[in-house]
Amino acid sequence: MDSHVEADLPPALACLKGADTLLRCPICFDFLSISMMTKCSHNFCSLCIRKFLSYKLQCPVCNTGATEDDLRNNRILDDLVLSFRAARQQLSKVTFDSPPISPKT
Amino acid sequence: MDSHVEADLPPALACLKGADTLLRCPICFDFLSISMMTKCSHNFCSLCIRKFLSYKLQCPVCNTGATEDDLRNNRILDDLVLSFRAARQQLSKVTFDSPPISPKT
Ligand SMILES: [Zn+2]
Ligand SMILES: [Zn+2]
Ligand SMILES: [Zn+2]
Ligand SMILES: [Zn+2]
Repeated sequence: MDSHVEADLPPALACLKGADTLLRCPICFDFLSISMMTKCSHNFCSLCIRKFLSYKLQCPVCNTGATEDDLRNNRILDDLVLSFRAARQQLSKVTFDSPPISPKT
Repeated sequence: MDSHVEADLPPALACLKGADTLLRCPICFDFLSISMMTKCSHNFCSLCIRKFLSYKLQCPVCNTGATEDDLRNNRILDDLVLSFRAARQQLSKVTFDSPPISPKT
């Protein structure tokens, strides 16, 4: 939940913007934290969607009816968030700090 | 389903290996194609898991009981596969073809 301290993507990593957006929660806009999927296949942080459903029994994205019982852990997204953030940090170093890598000849 | 023609990750992109692995189907080892999630939160290509379940009613990863009716589309993974493959191709160009990018001073 500390993504706000991360710098914007450097221009060389603009191509990661799509994955960055997909891995964020549509409620809090932070990276998904304990991802839960609704029946309608939308994903939210566990806390965010539970809070929302306690107020209104529908998906905040598509308005399909939804209950807490329907929620299913989408654990692969938690793993992808970790992997993505580590890769992004690593790539920021490569594209900015390293000497150019010559293609194999 | 054409990932086999893709080159291995260049060394500068080794940090993408984790995401690459997560986005592959545990049955066919190709990138997920029409991702379906079981109740136990494991993901497979739609065709791969339906074929498997017609033979045995359990998850191929953790052996929990599973049926076709329990499957839920995990569409965000299809979007992530597309986004990841595009980014990887783009980054291969950046890390191999471009002049070095100087850090801002
Ligand atoms: Zn959230
Ligand atoms: Zn929805
Ligand atoms: Zn498959
Ligand atoms: Zn399983």
